[in-house]
Amino acid sequence: MLSMQPIGHVRSPYRDSQDIPKGLGAKHEAEGVLEIRAEFEPGLTDIEGFSHLFVIWAFDRSEGCDLVETVPSDDRPHGVFATRSPRRPNPIGLTVVELLCRKGPVLHVRGIDMLEGTPILDIKPYLSSVPQERLRRGWLAEAEARSGRKP
Amino acid sequence: MLSMQPIGHVRSPYRDSQDIPKGLGAKHEAEGVLEIRAEFEPGLTDIEGFSHLFVIWAFDRSEGCDLVETVPSDDRPHGVFATRSPRRPNPIGLTVVELLCRKGPVLHVRGIDMLEGTPILDIKPYLSSVPQERLRRGWLAEAEARSGRKP
Repeated sequence: MLSMQPIGHVRSPYRDSQDIPKGLGAKHEAEGVLEIRAEFEPGLTDIEGFSHLFVIWAFDRSEGCDLVETVPSDDRPHGVFATRSPRRPNPIGLTVVELLCRKGPVLHVRGIDMLEGTPILDIKPYLSSVPQERLRRGWLAEAEARSGRKP
Repeated sequence: MLSMQPIGHVRSPYRDSQDIPKGLGAKHEAEGVLEIRAEFEPGLTDIEGFSHLFVIWAFDRSEGCDLVETVPSDDRPHGVFATRSPRRPNPIGLTVVELLCRKGPVLHVRGIDMLEGTPILDIKPYLSSVPQERLRRGWLAEAEARSGRKP
């Protein structure tokens, strides 16, 4: 077993998971704040130079785990590791956000899809992307095709 | 405090962290295996449809934390959250791998940069990329420019 401690918390407009856009075509454009604990502020040195960040966080209001589940983007069940479902063996969330500005230990970001008060476990610079032509999006692309939506 | 359990382990050609390509221009093309625990195999249902996966794992052989550190890609120090340094407040690693094939609970992948035996905490589908023209790569782009390297 590994123990993790929050390095800070998310300030989000979302108070209830029902409020977070989900399913096909959901856009995550909400602005919010990553409030990092003062003792970790030196760890943010030079982060302003990156346009996008990975935020690794904890689904602290999710309980239990379903290895196979039907998620809002499809009416067919899929394995939990092929989805972003909160009910995972380890309740870890991952979000790419755009960094708008930093004020000391506080990062203002766009692209929040976490609940207010979500514990943050880690932040890393988002460095590279997989070329579009090499990316396959599995059941999600199929669900989009069935629904007539574009990615 | 949050507790996490390994969902499986990485089979990697790297036995020592010195063996892992690091620094500017390092390529991660090594092939390896994500060996998921048999009890979690149903969670892999439909994962074959995705070309790339996020692997969230634990730096189990890293001790302690440096909030500001000089990493192999630059001769100037940076905050830990602006780097992929293993010496982090929570020793969480994140790697994007290409999924080559699945055999039951075993995923053959390319792009391994973890040590042999590294505990895996979570796997998620890699879904989207930030458009290249909107991406800024901070101190890393500067270090590349100083060294005459291209990203």
